[in-house]
Amino acid sequence: MKSIAEYSAIVNAGINRFEYDEPNSLYEPISYTMDGGGKRLRPVLTLAVADALDANVEEALRPALGVELYHNFTLLHDDIMDNSPTRRGRQAVWKKWDTAQAILSGDTMFSVAIDCILNSCYGDSQRISLIECFNKTALAVDCGQQYDMDFERREEVSVEEYINMISLKTGALLAGACKMGAICGNATSDICDAFYRYGINLGIAFQIQDDILDVYGDEETLGKPIGGDILNDKHTWLHITAMSEAHDKMSAVYAQGVEGKEKINAVRAIYDDLSLRNRSEQQVEHYMQLAVDAIDGTNLRDEVRRFFTEFAYSLIGRKK
Amino acid sequence: MKSIAEYSAIVNAGINRFEYDEPNSLYEPISYTMDGGGKRLRPVLTLAVADALDANVEEALRPALGVELYHNFTLLHDDIMDNSPTRRGRQAVWKKWDTAQAILSGDTMFSVAIDCILNSCYGDSQRISLIECFNKTALAVDCGQQYDMDFERREEVSVEEYINMISLKTGALLAGACKMGAICGNATSDICDAFYRYGINLGIAFQIQDDILDVYGDEETLGKPIGGDILNDKHTWLHITAMSEAHDKMSAVYAQGVEGKEKINAVRAIYDDLSLRNRSEQQVEHYMQLAVDAIDGTNLRDEVRRFFTEFAYSLIGRKK
Repeated sequence: MKSIAEYSAIVNAGINRFEYDEPNSLYEPISYTMDGGGKRLRPVLTLAVADALDANVEEALRPALGVELYHNFTLLHDDIMDNSPTRRGRQAVWKKWDTAQAILSGDTMFSVAIDCILNSCYGDSQRISLIECFNKTALAVDCGQQYDMDFERREEVSVEEYINMISLKTGALLAGACKMGAICGNATSDICDAFYRYGINLGIAFQIQDDILDVYGDEETLGKPIGGDILNDKHTWLHITAMSEAHDKMSAVYAQGVEGKEKINAVRAIYDDLSLRNRSEQQVEHYMQLAVDAIDGTNLRDEVRRFFTEFAYSLIGRKK
Repeated sequence: MKSIAEYSAIVNAGINRFEYDEPNSLYEPISYTMDGGGKRLRPVLTLAVADALDANVEEALRPALGVELYHNFTLLHDDIMDNSPTRRGRQAVWKKWDTAQAILSGDTMFSVAIDCILNSCYGDSQRISLIECFNKTALAVDCGQQYDMDFERREEVSVEEYINMISLKTGALLAGACKMGAICGNATSDICDAFYRYGINLGIAFQIQDDILDVYGDEETLGKPIGGDILNDKHTWLHITAMSEAHDKMSAVYAQGVEGKEKINAVRAIYDDLSLRNRSEQQVEHYMQLAVDAIDGTNLRDEVRRFFTEFAYSLIGRKK
């Protein structure tokens, strides 16, 4: 196994030498998006799983790039849907160009991702499996995005519904990235499933961790102000739990109509009373354990298990 | 061979019994779009080509539905891009729901189309060929849409550029629909290419005919006012030819700044002076002939050639 940084370097080299088609007006927003950086976590997973199964890493690069193109496609279209003007410190595509261009270049990006899989070196049967996995992943992510939008219009959401939503919106792509690596490695369905479960649970852990950081994180490390979720009344694990266990106190805060820092402090005080920081961290730990267990349940060599355990803890910003 | 109406009935039956996934909020805009009617010309082509090659028509239905889903996906996203509030006499999806929903349901629709191909009964090699053809078609259509948008910002466009644009935007999907039918029928690459050329040239003829109808058509038959392209200074075969052959006269009309009926009449007078109605109809005839020749060049039975000739002439609303 290589290190995360080494897999990441292979992905970045692949992105740098990627040749986009013509016309430039259609493909420039795509290369702009792909040049925006990011940690390339998903394609790293594809390469690492392929490598763990002794597949050729360079051969797995094309499907891995398909995964990264797809991930960036979702960000491009999400920014239009959310009306977000910036992404990774630069203008979002719809802002730099316009909405029509962002929709069209996004649609094209999805097909470019499929093209990467079609143009990989694998035989028909493996390529069909890769495309099946890719397309099922895309449908799951769409479904998760839909639930997220639906939840915004609802007053209450259950923890179960929330976990299902983030398992689709965030987990499915990590799981799909892993499973595609397993398909590149010609894995048995048991191994495919194990890596899929690893990805799903990792995604859930990652999202809850993200929710925690929004309330208890460090503004400087995060690079954005704390409390955005609270100000937007976003359904997160913390919010949903507080609404269920301290409904009257939460309602009282809303009834007062306080805003800004005052609202953040009032809600955080309720969270603190319910020990939600500690309890949500236990939730993260629970899903991390499920992820790690999925790989531990296989007969893969120790080096492999160590890599995926380390990857999981690095994802949520902790050392194991 | 069956009749166009019979293939169309098979497509509509397939659409009517199609089962969409959950959640309803994501899939309802898709079924709404698919229920909007339309002539189902593209999937009819897929079925007819498959049938012409003695493939099982019911087995070709799934890829054909993929083609129709894709076509409707382009309309759904195009309506957002063009800011068009209506489609086939009903509210466009972005108007009935909102832009975010239209983007997301559109994205999902594309994956549902791929799912149709993946879930068809064909073996891995045929399904890979189908997906390759489908995805290449989607990239070509995106490219055509991009040129169309780019042309809007330009003063002059050459006839060659225009023909290339419509061959991508309109021709590629008719061609792709035909070729997918040929793949279902396990055709040789010569037959695949013949049907592809048929579709491309048919698309060009269809689009030029559409341009003619906008100037010389009957408002009642068209169901919309005449002259929309002239009022929007749209680059069409007629407009481009007039700009090239009677540049000063066209510029004079623009310099006068006349609008509405007066502008339509002034531009049409220039078209008439150049005999553009007759000459554009010759263009349609030229591309129709190329389409028919493509099929005539094969060794397919007479009944097949007759069907595709009739289909071509019915498409541009004329009897052969």
